Amino acid sequence: MRSIAVLAFTLSLGVLGVQEAGGQTVRARDLGIPFEGEPGALNAITDVRGIQVGFSTIVDGEGPLRKGVGPVRTGVTAILPRGRRFDPVFAATYALNGNGEMTGIHWIEESGFLETPIMITNTFSVGVVRDAVIAWMDSTGANADPAGGLWYTYPVVAETYDVLNDILGQHVTAEHAFAALDGATAGPVQEGNVGGGTGMIAHGFKGGTGTASRITQDGHVVGVLVQANYGGRADFTVAGVPVGKEIQDLQPNWEALPRGSIIVVVATDAPLQPQQLQRLSERVPLAIGRMGGFGSNGSGDIFISFSTGNPGIWENRTTRTMEILPNSAMNQLFPAVVQATEEAILNAMVSAETMTGRDGLTAHALPHDRLQGILRAYNRWVDPQR
Amino acid sequence: MRSIAVLAFTLSLGVLGVQEAGGQTVRARDLGIPFEGEPGALNAITDVRGIQVGFSTIVDGEGPLRKGVGPVRTGVTAILPRGRRFDPVFAATYALNGNGEMTGIHWIEESGFLETPIMITNTFSVGVVRDAVIAWMDSTGANADPAGGLWYTYPVVAETYDVLNDILGQHVTAEHAFAALDGATAGPVQEGNVGGGTGMIAHGFKGGTGTASRITQDGHVVGVLVQANYGGRADFTVAGVPVGKEIQDLQPNWEALPRGSIIVVVATDAPLQPQQLQRLSERVPLAIGRMGGFGSNGSGDIFISFSTGNPGIWENRTTRTMEILPNSAMNQLFPAVVQATEEAILNAMVSAETMTGRDGLTAHALPHDRLQGILRAYNRWVDPQR
Amino acid sequence: MRSIAVLAFTLSLGVLGVQEAGGQTVRARDLGIPFEGEPGALNAITDVRGIQVGFSTIVDGEGPLRKGVGPVRTGVTAILPRGRRFDPVFAATYALNGNGEMTGIHWIEESGFLETPIMITNTFSVGVVRDAVIAWMDSTGANADPAGGLWYTYPVVAETYDVLNDILGQHVTAEHAFAALDGATAGPVQEGNVGGGTGMIAHGFKGGTGTASRITQDGHVVGVLVQANYGGRADFTVAGVPVGKEIQDLQPNWEALPRGSIIVVVATDAPLQPQQLQRLSERVPLAIGRMGGFGSNGSGDIFISFSTGNPGIWENRTTRTMEILPNSAMNQLFPAVVQATEEAILNAMVSAETMTGRDGLTAHALPHDRLQGILRAYNRWVDPQR
Amino acid sequence: MRSIAVLAFTLSLGVLGVQEAGGQTVRARDLGIPFEGEPGALNAITDVRGIQVGFSTIVDGEGPLRKGVGPVRTGVTAILPRGRRFDPVFAATYALNGNGEMTGIHWIEESGFLETPIMITNTFSVGVVRDAVIAWMDSTGANADPAGGLWYTYPVVAETYDVLNDILGQHVTAEHAFAALDGATAGPVQEGNVGGGTGMIAHGFKGGTGTASRITQDGHVVGVLVQANYGGRADFTVAGVPVGKEIQDLQPNWEALPRGSIIVVVATDAPLQPQQLQRLSERVPLAIGRMGGFGSNGSGDIFISFSTGNPGIWENRTTRTMEILPNSAMNQLFPAVVQATEEAILNAMVSAETMTGRDGLTAHALPHDRLQGILRAYNRWVDPQR
Repeated sequence: MRSIAVLAFTLSLGVLGVQEAGGQTVRARDLGIPFEGEPGALNAITDVRGIQVGFSTIVDGEGPLRKGVGPVRTGVTAILPRGRRFDPVFAATYALNGNGEMTGIHWIEESGFLETPIMITNTFSVGVVRDAVIAWMDSTGANADPAGGLWYTYPVVAETYDVLNDILGQHVTAEHAFAALDGATAGPVQEGNVGGGTGMIAHGFKGGTGTASRITQDGHVVGVLVQANYGGRADFTVAGVPVGKEIQDLQPNWEALPRGSIIVVVATDAPLQPQQLQRLSERVPLAIGRMGGFGSNGSGDIFISFSTGNPGIWENRTTRTMEILPNSAMNQLFPAVVQATEEAILNAMVSAETMTGRDGLTAHALPHDRLQGILRAYNRWVDPQR
Repeated sequence: MRSIAVLAFTLSLGVLGVQEAGGQTVRARDLGIPFEGEPGALNAITDVRGIQVGFSTIVDGEGPLRKGVGPVRTGVTAILPRGRRFDPVFAATYALNGNGEMTGIHWIEESGFLETPIMITNTFSVGVVRDAVIAWMDSTGANADPAGGLWYTYPVVAETYDVLNDILGQHVTAEHAFAALDGATAGPVQEGNVGGGTGMIAHGFKGGTGTASRITQDGHVVGVLVQANYGGRADFTVAGVPVGKEIQDLQPNWEALPRGSIIVVVATDAPLQPQQLQRLSERVPLAIGRMGGFGSNGSGDIFISFSTGNPGIWENRTTRTMEILPNSAMNQLFPAVVQATEEAILNAMVSAETMTGRDGLTAHALPHDRLQGILRAYNRWVDPQR
Repeated sequence: MRSIAVLAFTLSLGVLGVQEAGGQTVRARDLGIPFEGEPGALNAITDVRGIQVGFSTIVDGEGPLRKGVGPVRTGVTAILPRGRRFDPVFAATYALNGNGEMTGIHWIEESGFLETPIMITNTFSVGVVRDAVIAWMDSTGANADPAGGLWYTYPVVAETYDVLNDILGQHVTAEHAFAALDGATAGPVQEGNVGGGTGMIAHGFKGGTGTASRITQDGHVVGVLVQANYGGRADFTVAGVPVGKEIQDLQPNWEALPRGSIIVVVATDAPLQPQQLQRLSERVPLAIGRMGGFGSNGSGDIFISFSTGNPGIWENRTTRTMEILPNSAMNQLFPAVVQATEEAILNAMVSAETMTGRDGLTAHALPHDRLQGILRAYNRWVDPQR
Repeated sequence: MRSIAVLAFTLSLGVLGVQEAGGQTVRARDLGIPFEGEPGALNAITDVRGIQVGFSTIVDGEGPLRKGVGPVRTGVTAILPRGRRFDPVFAATYALNGNGEMTGIHWIEESGFLETPIMITNTFSVGVVRDAVIAWMDSTGANADPAGGLWYTYPVVAETYDVLNDILGQHVTAEHAFAALDGATAGPVQEGNVGGGTGMIAHGFKGGTGTASRITQDGHVVGVLVQANYGGRADFTVAGVPVGKEIQDLQPNWEALPRGSIIVVVATDAPLQPQQLQRLSERVPLAIGRMGGFGSNGSGDIFISFSTGNPGIWENRTTRTMEILPNSAMNQLFPAVVQATEEAILNAMVSAETMTGRDGLTAHALPHDRLQGILRAYNRWVDPQR
């Protein structure tokens, strides 16, 4: 019927972002923003070995909103903690402000296990993605209970609200979810206007999908992926610099509510138990505070952390042996979470390009040159080549 | 394509249950089970004024399981706290064991408000029902934000797993959800093999949907609706009597797992704030304990309580005035919750008729006569006519 | 100044309870109450190897209340998960109704570890016991941080309210806490009017301290210790039998509030992580429901569970290896918690002897013979010799 | 025996802080730090009408540590939400990192009410202060239950660890708690080395007690009081400026652990219900993130918020009427909490003077002139006279 472009990316070369002159992609730290901590090789959630990420990006139509027709500016993001293998990971969630949805959390809270991929889409398409994950797990055998008993699970699907999109048209289909899942890969991760992040706004600029990572002194990896759709312009802060106060133009051409939402996925290879992962999830607000966010009343700021340590730990028949990191070692992971979240948000904003959606609504890209100039004015610019 | 019988009941006369000889419906207390407390006029959740309940019951096909074809034994239950009016109620949830799903709880926890109907269906159809509720709210204007701003919400959809059903066939459609919502009425509530409870098992007998109510000394009403799919046979206890030990035959003809699940919806007209409703939700396990349940590892025992007090309280612009019950008055509500939950579970079991589903799997109805005989043997039978 | 009898028991022979004719102690199951499950050798929390329990029982004076003078009917109970060794255990808590105090829970929730003994005393003496535990840990070297750094901890102290006692007199001293700690032993555990349970009431009868245990099919031990001070008479239920309705005399000679409180300590040697222990704590209400409790508004119903599995796991410097029980195995532990809690409450009531406290207030012992007669009348008495 | 100086301040004139040349007290904003939002008249928690604050500051002895003798550098802080009147306020707590203690939270979580003063002292003196509050409430009649029934309550006492103090000496007595309570007043609040904050360190400088406030656009007041004992030097950030990296000298003369702790008390006159106060408590981490804190593993970062709206609401007998702020109005309160917390922390550090404690351990005051110079270097200094 309607022709929607489903773009299921399976890119394996190069971190894709905004193409600057010369075709080189640019990320936040390339602009001279001073970040703390040491990033991983890809500076992406996929620096945590085994994680795969895929997207369906749905962009179709222009002009006035016709519900059910378009314009469409949305998508689906899939994060597979251990790829296609059914091997649940320990996980835990926290909501700074729960004006949002993340399905599947009862069993995570009860058992400590995340048994499904993590999906992120728009607010009104959570259901279709949720049921699609079940069908996908069934069809791929990802669900294989070694005991062959009844099989059931509760997919984790989160969302933010895409104002640019015909969201009430509910354009996301099961096929979009399948495409994101089937296209998921290790390696570099697309950023900006992709997947669930396609139609998002952050701090009054174009937002979207972003990722980053940190390596701790002990050699553990913390990777973060965000879908950033939150924050007011006036409060926008970069490395402590009041950038939002300095750039008061380039506002969205509608009354942008400061509500927004942000979904944050934190991954680590450190062998943490669920209670420790809870602590990681509760560190995400520290990053949001640094960016100038307040967890506003209309915001769905929901975070999930998982550990790829202890493969095979879910096996549900016998007493098993697992590794556990001492609590004192959390002190290396906490800053890593905060730093990687901060950089992932800025990567989303730096990569996202100006987008016009329904009814001509336009969200402008964060201007790279002006950002750099402001950092210099506050003595906070660092030479990215150093 | 496939012909599924959608039965959206809008019954307005008489509490429907199992038809005994003479056409009279029978509920648990008609069998002489000694219950505490005073029930409301209907002994149903609809004794709380304003509440509407509707069902879609989907029964189709027989014989061996063919995924996507059938047999189908499932449905959708809809509970509308204030009918079709958009007037959110205070609410709070608790999970005794979270091996299950109830969507939409982040915003309830954050804001204290339940803004949507409560839907109950099967485990693999939560998503379709969830997105359908959004479309239904949009189409009916139930969503009308008086300020006319962006509209969004997070439907509450819970589930239990119907072993008798081709659950992986995902037979529930948006239309089934619409039918349950559109058919919802005040008045008597169907019980047994209806709505989301169609294909359920409880304590090794046929389970399903049940309801009951209590009037407190102060005149407040507590109504409960359950979708009962939990419990082992050996532990089944009725009014303290070990009925499950006395009836060891009539077992399901497959290895019935003691996992099950139970969704409990508690409603009251007492003007409670969310924190007090949380306390009601946490009283539900006391009833499950009395029935011989343990909240087993595979069970999704998730409870939601709401108050129809303080109509109009959600209005989101100005400081408002609300009524609040003192905490000391909770002591009347706590027993009411426990007693009504216990009776609602037994109403589900007493009303549910023997059902054969996929692959010839059969769940037997609780035999009324034997139940009565056992109660007498333990000196616990009371004359229902007294 | 005042002469208070400090009775720090270090008994090692025989389970002490009420002395029936012939000098034999009687516990609940000796009376023919039908209990489910298999108890451990002592039917006590100390069936979990390594646990030590000690008491200070403070009984002094009679007659009218003179604040600061007496009469005194109170005490301190100490439970040492691994005796005097500093080797923290995983733990988790849950409150059915939080009208009470259990200090030290922030760090348990955060870290998963219980690092101190568990103490139970009266409501107004929690503080003195709390600070005393720190001094005791310091003096005994129980605090030894292997790294020799700063030392700090947050003792766990719970309470119930002893109406019979001059509670505002705050008669408990640090020395009473030391005596309970120093006198703690493995082996049989005193019950009834001892330790923190000295002045308590339960279901309108004399309450106090009780304990019980269960052995699971897999051979794990679950031990429970309660300080029972909760429940109304009319709701008192024993093995499903409405005993409280059958014994309406023997009421306390003051307006006994149905508020009360109950502290429950659950111990197991099963190697559980904190999240799993949380699940045990949340099963305690199932037992309270069976007894006829409602978690009333004035009740402090707070529960803590810990595991003696994984000794040495706290060591806070390196990645360690630990055992973990699969979640499916929780299904054996859940009934064990419920059954042992129910029996521990009844052991407290069966062992407690009639006590008169301040102002002549008297709580009567549960009459053994009448209890047995009622069980027989409801066909629920079992021959304890079988 | 030992002579400890108990300084119970009842100052009523002038905000007391560090005395600069000329005798004028200096607070953080006097140094040109750019703060957002509009402070109240006192820029203190006492801008919320009815709140009283009192301190006992205990400073005694010098030289090597002799346990039980000294040196003593500690104290007690008392915050009375409605002064001496027994009129409980709605409240809610949150712990960013629970390596600490705040007693009394079970009943707050259950009932929504804070019924006692909030006390802050050192880690090993929580108990004595807790029991003292009960005696004080009893003696002052602050406990008067209008129904004249049994009286009981669960005092809220929090703590941080004073390395400079002979903390194992447990020098705080009930009299110190009484003095802080009896000396509590409205009006200006002392800052720096006073009360529970006497011996504290923050970001490697001398920490202690600080306060600040904000007035929202709607005219509601948010007041904050902190006891700041947390944070690493390298991460210390002031208004986005990396001050901690710029001042690497003036370190404490022992291996300062980055653990620390921070207790934050948030008060408002906005008529919030407990669930909304919970949201305020969960905004405190946003301020800690801005300061460069990470909620480290050894930190007890525990926050409590209360509302002085709805006086008389606790009355526990009849259905009452209360005011409630709409959730949308939280958007004005959230930034106020973050801004006031940030300024209160800096007020504590700016006011605290260099202190030498046990064993010659010295924590240096934050140097005002260097701070100002650094702010200028980063273009962040603002003229405080503007």
